[in-house]
Amino acid sequence: MFTHTHALQYEAKPDGPDPDFARKMQEILGGQWGEMTVATQYLLQGWNTRLPGKYKDLLLAIGTEELAHVEMIVTMIDRLLDHIPLKPDSADRSKEAAAGYGQHNPQHAIQNGAGASYMDSMGNPWTGAYVTASGNLMADFFYNATAEMQGRLQVARLYNMTDDPGVKDMLRFLITRDHYHQQQWLAAIEQLKDDGLENIPVPEAFPLEEEVTDLGYVFLDASDGPEAANGRWATGPSIDGRGTFSARPIEATADAPILPPGDPRLFPTPQMQGQSLIQKAKDMLT
Amino acid sequence: MFTHTHALQYEAKPDGPDPDFARKMQEILGGQWGEMTVATQYLLQGWNTRLPGKYKDLLLAIGTEELAHVEMIVTMIDRLLDHIPLKPDSADRSKEAAAGYGQHNPQHAIQNGAGASYMDSMGNPWTGAYVTASGNLMADFFYNATAEMQGRLQVARLYNMTDDPGVKDMLRFLITRDHYHQQQWLAAIEQLKDDGLENIPVPEAFPLEEEVTDLGYVFLDASDGPEAANGRWATGPSIDGRGTFSARPIEATADAPILPPGDPRLFPTPQMQGQSLIQKAKDMLT
Amino acid sequence: MFTHTHALQYEAKPDGPDPDFARKMQEILGGQWGEMTVATQYLLQGWNTRLPGKYKDLLLAIGTEELAHVEMIVTMIDRLLDHIPLKPDSADRSKEAAAGYGQHNPQHAIQNGAGASYMDSMGNPWTGAYVTASGNLMADFFYNATAEMQGRLQVARLYNMTDDPGVKDMLRFLITRDHYHQQQWLAAIEQLKDDGLENIPVPEAFPLEEEVTDLGYVFLDASDGPEAANGRWATGPSIDGRGTFSARPIEATADAPILPPGDPRLFPTPQMQGQSLIQKAKDMLT
Amino acid sequence: MFTHTHALQYEAKPDGPDPDFARKMQEILGGQWGEMTVATQYLLQGWNTRLPGKYKDLLLAIGTEELAHVEMIVTMIDRLLDHIPLKPDSADRSKEAAAGYGQHNPQHAIQNGAGASYMDSMGNPWTGAYVTASGNLMADFFYNATAEMQGRLQVARLYNMTDDPGVKDMLRFLITRDHYHQQQWLAAIEQLKDDGLENIPVPEAFPLEEEVTDLGYVFLDASDGPEAANGRWATGPSIDGRGTFSARPIEATADAPILPPGDPRLFPTPQMQGQSLIQKAKDMLT
Amino acid sequence: MFTHTHALQYEAKPDGPDPDFARKMQEILGGQWGEMTVATQYLLQGWNTRLPGKYKDLLLAIGTEELAHVEMIVTMIDRLLDHIPLKPDSADRSKEAAAGYGQHNPQHAIQNGAGASYMDSMGNPWTGAYVTASGNLMADFFYNATAEMQGRLQVARLYNMTDDPGVKDMLRFLITRDHYHQQQWLAAIEQLKDDGLENIPVPEAFPLEEEVTDLGYVFLDASDGPEAANGRWATGPSIDGRGTFSARPIEATADAPILPPGDPRLFPTPQMQGQSLIQKAKDMLT
Amino acid sequence: MFTHTHALQYEAKPDGPDPDFARKMQEILGGQWGEMTVATQYLLQGWNTRLPGKYKDLLLAIGTEELAHVEMIVTMIDRLLDHIPLKPDSADRSKEAAAGYGQHNPQHAIQNGAGASYMDSMGNPWTGAYVTASGNLMADFFYNATAEMQGRLQVARLYNMTDDPGVKDMLRFLITRDHYHQQQWLAAIEQLKDDGLENIPVPEAFPLEEEVTDLGYVFLDASDGPEAANGRWATGPSIDGRGTFSARPIEATADAPILPPGDPRLFPTPQMQGQSLIQKAKDMLT
Repeated sequence: MFTHTHALQYEAKPDGPDPDFARKMQEILGGQWGEMTVATQYLLQGWNTRLPGKYKDLLLAIGTEELAHVEMIVTMIDRLLDHIPLKPDSADRSKEAAAGYGQHNPQHAIQNGAGASYMDSMGNPWTGAYVTASGNLMADFFYNATAEMQGRLQVARLYNMTDDPGVKDMLRFLITRDHYHQQQWLAAIEQLKDDGLENIPVPEAFPLEEEVTDLGYVFLDASDGPEAANGRWATGPSIDGRGTFSARPIEATADAPILPPGDPRLFPTPQMQGQSLIQKAKDMLT
Repeated sequence: MFTHTHALQYEAKPDGPDPDFARKMQEILGGQWGEMTVATQYLLQGWNTRLPGKYKDLLLAIGTEELAHVEMIVTMIDRLLDHIPLKPDSADRSKEAAAGYGQHNPQHAIQNGAGASYMDSMGNPWTGAYVTASGNLMADFFYNATAEMQGRLQVARLYNMTDDPGVKDMLRFLITRDHYHQQQWLAAIEQLKDDGLENIPVPEAFPLEEEVTDLGYVFLDASDGPEAANGRWATGPSIDGRGTFSARPIEATADAPILPPGDPRLFPTPQMQGQSLIQKAKDMLT
Repeated sequence: MFTHTHALQYEAKPDGPDPDFARKMQEILGGQWGEMTVATQYLLQGWNTRLPGKYKDLLLAIGTEELAHVEMIVTMIDRLLDHIPLKPDSADRSKEAAAGYGQHNPQHAIQNGAGASYMDSMGNPWTGAYVTASGNLMADFFYNATAEMQGRLQVARLYNMTDDPGVKDMLRFLITRDHYHQQQWLAAIEQLKDDGLENIPVPEAFPLEEEVTDLGYVFLDASDGPEAANGRWATGPSIDGRGTFSARPIEATADAPILPPGDPRLFPTPQMQGQSLIQKAKDMLT
Repeated sequence: MFTHTHALQYEAKPDGPDPDFARKMQEILGGQWGEMTVATQYLLQGWNTRLPGKYKDLLLAIGTEELAHVEMIVTMIDRLLDHIPLKPDSADRSKEAAAGYGQHNPQHAIQNGAGASYMDSMGNPWTGAYVTASGNLMADFFYNATAEMQGRLQVARLYNMTDDPGVKDMLRFLITRDHYHQQQWLAAIEQLKDDGLENIPVPEAFPLEEEVTDLGYVFLDASDGPEAANGRWATGPSIDGRGTFSARPIEATADAPILPPGDPRLFPTPQMQGQSLIQKAKDMLT
Repeated sequence: MFTHTHALQYEAKPDGPDPDFARKMQEILGGQWGEMTVATQYLLQGWNTRLPGKYKDLLLAIGTEELAHVEMIVTMIDRLLDHIPLKPDSADRSKEAAAGYGQHNPQHAIQNGAGASYMDSMGNPWTGAYVTASGNLMADFFYNATAEMQGRLQVARLYNMTDDPGVKDMLRFLITRDHYHQQQWLAAIEQLKDDGLENIPVPEAFPLEEEVTDLGYVFLDASDGPEAANGRWATGPSIDGRGTFSARPIEATADAPILPPGDPRLFPTPQMQGQSLIQKAKDMLT
Repeated sequence: MFTHTHALQYEAKPDGPDPDFARKMQEILGGQWGEMTVATQYLLQGWNTRLPGKYKDLLLAIGTEELAHVEMIVTMIDRLLDHIPLKPDSADRSKEAAAGYGQHNPQHAIQNGAGASYMDSMGNPWTGAYVTASGNLMADFFYNATAEMQGRLQVARLYNMTDDPGVKDMLRFLITRDHYHQQQWLAAIEQLKDDGLENIPVPEAFPLEEEVTDLGYVFLDASDGPEAANGRWATGPSIDGRGTFSARPIEATADAPILPPGDPRLFPTPQMQGQSLIQKAKDMLT
């Protein structure tokens, strides 16, 4: 259960409106790697995990913090939209040039009345398909670490797309928290290993003796890039400590497949020409 | 540029048809973590990267291998659909019980004529939104490692959902390659660090002195789970080696936001009651 | 900013697992009218509204309560999935019959490892497109009231689809809160009117003298249903108190449109046959 | 069954082309609250309702009128696209400035050859997920009233985004019809009550004695906004006339949930550390 | 503008309910090749075409007929849902076996109250992205012919999935109209050619002398299938009558691309290792 | 199985960057009719077809060639993005004017770091729903021919939207291959007929004697366009050679449908007013 305070975790106030940047900022609100994704993902992983204790507690704590970031970004976008141009000729009235007019998101005016919405910078609505909660914490913590990397990368790019001191201040906060959260998930990965709960390859519990020959340690080269095998992944001891990496060209090991004829009740193109020819013959006779 | 051989990288032949399992197998073809995702993602990352050499070569080599896995899974699904039941009463004719009939995907018959399509096990079409190519290889390699973990996890689950020896044989192959690919991306992450190209936090090039105070090293606890701070992420040296982890409760640092009134041309609910009251007065007078 | 407690607002514990019903319950979690929609919608309306005070406070309070409902339903689904059948033949091991096996959502096992996700009962991911925050509170409160009606209707239907006492107990709680929330939004609509902030037609501030003749009060009948005009909407004083309802058959008032020829640089089918004929002639000559 | 006349219900002719505004106008054609939604929704509700007579007749009559609005808006967009700029440098040739060039939708040229399509102003295709037909007319009529409010609001905003007299004339027509249709659905709601068919709370037929204690009449406050309980929704007689509104802070009533361990065949993170530790021990021994 | 009659173009009455088949029939209502697609597509092409006369008139006439088919299929699905099972144990009460219970679409009950909706047989909502109206009638008429082929194919498959005489009767009607409509679009293609308005290749008006060497007439073989060039497409006079078909293996003609370094403000993986190494050095010194 | 070479099938190098055009070019990469669609569609049709030999070999050969086109367009877009403007004021630094700034896709910078992605020109992600593989080659080859027509049309339009010689050169290549591929599928259609495998109407194997009276040869006119029946489709011998075309106005042949009352457990609006009235009476008495 949640409770809410109107006070913000961190200030979200631009020095002036900027509808062009408001549109761009939607990416970190409702985009694939935005705050909606991490907030709802960490909470879902926390609720779903069947392992009580510190991991569950961590997930629910962080997911709740991310809700505060959603709130801050929504508030920032609202303020960036304080003066949204309604027509090309009104573009001059604000500090936004004609260039900025072209970039602004018209749904911010038509649909939201100068407010944010759960979409990305190209107007795609946020979708639950962005969220992963597999029940295997190692797999999910790697995804969480990725999400914080992609997220920090996007905020750092946005940081270079504005000169507004107020905006930059909030972006700095988000970049800093993403810095911590990257480390947090990497630390949680280490903790999972230390606790003996999971390891590489995920899922560790699948019996390795069921695997096929040496294919767990071989780079198969399917392209002609000359340096493809010149990396750590093709030589030396394997990452899981159980083998040695090698490399060889990819090769086919099974014959070209031949499928049986289709079910005639589904009207596929028949393998035998009989059916249609017979039909034609029948038509000619009648 | 690509060339193709009809021979398969590995055999994809079930011992018998199973439309129920064919539907489930769609998950690793056209689901978020299926082979369509990794094939098209590795290729896109390879084409987009502005760093020539071993990483680009690696990405294009592996992306091309994954196309062969797409082909194998499509072929397997086609064969599992050799006898698809058209009506409830026909369910008895194959080995599939009434239970299996209920699970089968009717589009396999109506739309594809007993063939595979690019969708997941619930019929959601595969989407390019599953693919990430950020231009930052560290962020993307973490995502790739995740994809192989989620992928191997799903295939391992499917392995426990069938008794068909032919199906299990191909799943073992996929599990094995996902084993290697997990290690491969983790090795590539090490290589990126060794080459001095990127490090934690991603993106490394963002100047840390721009960050906000100590928030890059603090776990902020927003929930009452008693063990949330009992992990590696809240104590000891930070993962980036530049600080020390600590923990404290989350707190608000900015006042509740007050937004200015909306633009009346967008017909928001007004802050002043004047407009509507005046209108009413006007109406009463006329 | 939010804080979270692990305790639930209300108990969410079934008497036994039921993967069939778990799939159906996804509708009120991640469906169009599920708890994800109302939680994120009320919060967004609250953050976006430019009218400080009781309406904003109400929206943020209720949106926060709905987050607790999301948590309860996720927990209930998790528990309904405690024994998810992996194969048709294993369906017998639980209380679920073959019928129930056919209905279960395979992603619950393959993707989520026996956990909930943000999708509806047919597997469509929840989308931000379900959320409306127009900046006009009257329009949005009507939508909110609708959401609570559709939501209570769906929960009431689910109530008739299970015999599990624990499930029914939680559904009763949701039905009761939806009862209150329906009244709450209807009361808020009355309050908006009483405060002189908005009225019918929405938006009230658009000058009625700009409207076209009498078309604001006429039912135009475009079908041959004999009773279409036998209702309150076609006779008597209008709802806004400014006119009298009437009815007449629909009629066209403008000529069939004639569009100018297309831009040849876009290669439309030309109006004049010249282009292609000339091209043909040119070809014949060369 | 339908018949069609080429004549338009109302004129749809701008004074000049305006590709920027054509893009914006897509919102009321193929957006969530556009004419495609109301046309297809009213028809579906009409076809689906199991109550013959005036409500069914009304729904089919109005749905058919809305099809004429779809036609008018498509025609208007086509004409606004009569001169669509193909390159930045050609922007000067029309009355559209560089600003307007930036806003135009390139699919209007590339995909549609200067024509409309079923998408919104950000290019999201219209989707059947916008349509609700629940079988409960009270719930659906509230949604219909909402749709007309959101629709009129959007058209009124568009009215302030153009100076073209021809465009404004058609928008006035749409605003006027939305005025009537708002009243129509509100009148239909009254009629449903008068006919004794449905009432608040929807669905009325669910037995109130099944509800939980007093939660049908209590505002539960989950946020610290000081005025949240200062409205009609927290005091006085309830809207359904069966209780009295009150308010109190939200509180948790159930313990934190503890989920049982996951099915090992799905490879979740185990609760017991045994499995992985045993595996490690086994590895060390071999 | 449209008018509507409650009478149906053709009878839509099953002999009995069948919720399993109701779900399957959604494919031809709201699927990619269903009646929603052709109805809205023909109308849009008709409204958008800038060529007045017989083609526009044809499109609007047929699009209007297809609306009647939408109505018929909705009505049929409604009746197939007259007795929808709410629980597994209730499956026995109707003629539907446990097998059929598993297949039924739960949204038909939860969301629509035993009614149809605009989705396909797997629950994907119909989308405007299915509709093409390019402004080039030749390209679009080929698509229309395809749509009628795919549509007739699907209806013919459904015909083999039911024994209900009433359902089969309506399917026969749809199959017959799709038979005519296939011919109609093929005839319209011939007519376009006869009228000199368009020809192969589409768009004919693009000057062929701008094309690259002989690549308009060569089959380039990129796979090792031995019979790929044994067809009409690789030998003899070309279809456009302007060349001769030939075949040869695919070959690369341009060097491997080398992209310039990325913009450092976007934090890509750098080409030079300098930046990160320098940063590291700087960190070590401070 | 596939192998890849880094060399390109054809050069993909613009004379200079142009982020505006890069956005537009996404249409032919990830749009409905872009190269992703044809590549993945031809491969899927090839893998799925149950007819071994020349058609399967053709499909896999061409699908593989299209993968090379995906690669070329990605490379071209990457290069067009070499200098992407980050702010309005930086627009002047490149050759792109303010107009072009407005058009550029901000995700190209924020998400992809100056790289392509699998989306169309409005940012909609590519989806597997664009792909059709019905198992009936005649229906699918018509779709393939359409795809090449729509594709060539779009590329030809793009050709008129740029002055960059390098871009135009690659577009010419694509236009030329689409020219061949149009002919190829039309030739394959002829071949299917010559081989006696399929014919009009598709599917040929459905027995024509099951069709309804004369409706396979009649144009039914549902609109008042005066020329609708003045074409080849309404007069003369039918395309399938088995009948004669005629025309008549559409007419209804079945009574208005009357649906039975809904299941009260689903809480529909009841047909009888009893339930609610009784409830009201009961309430009044208690």
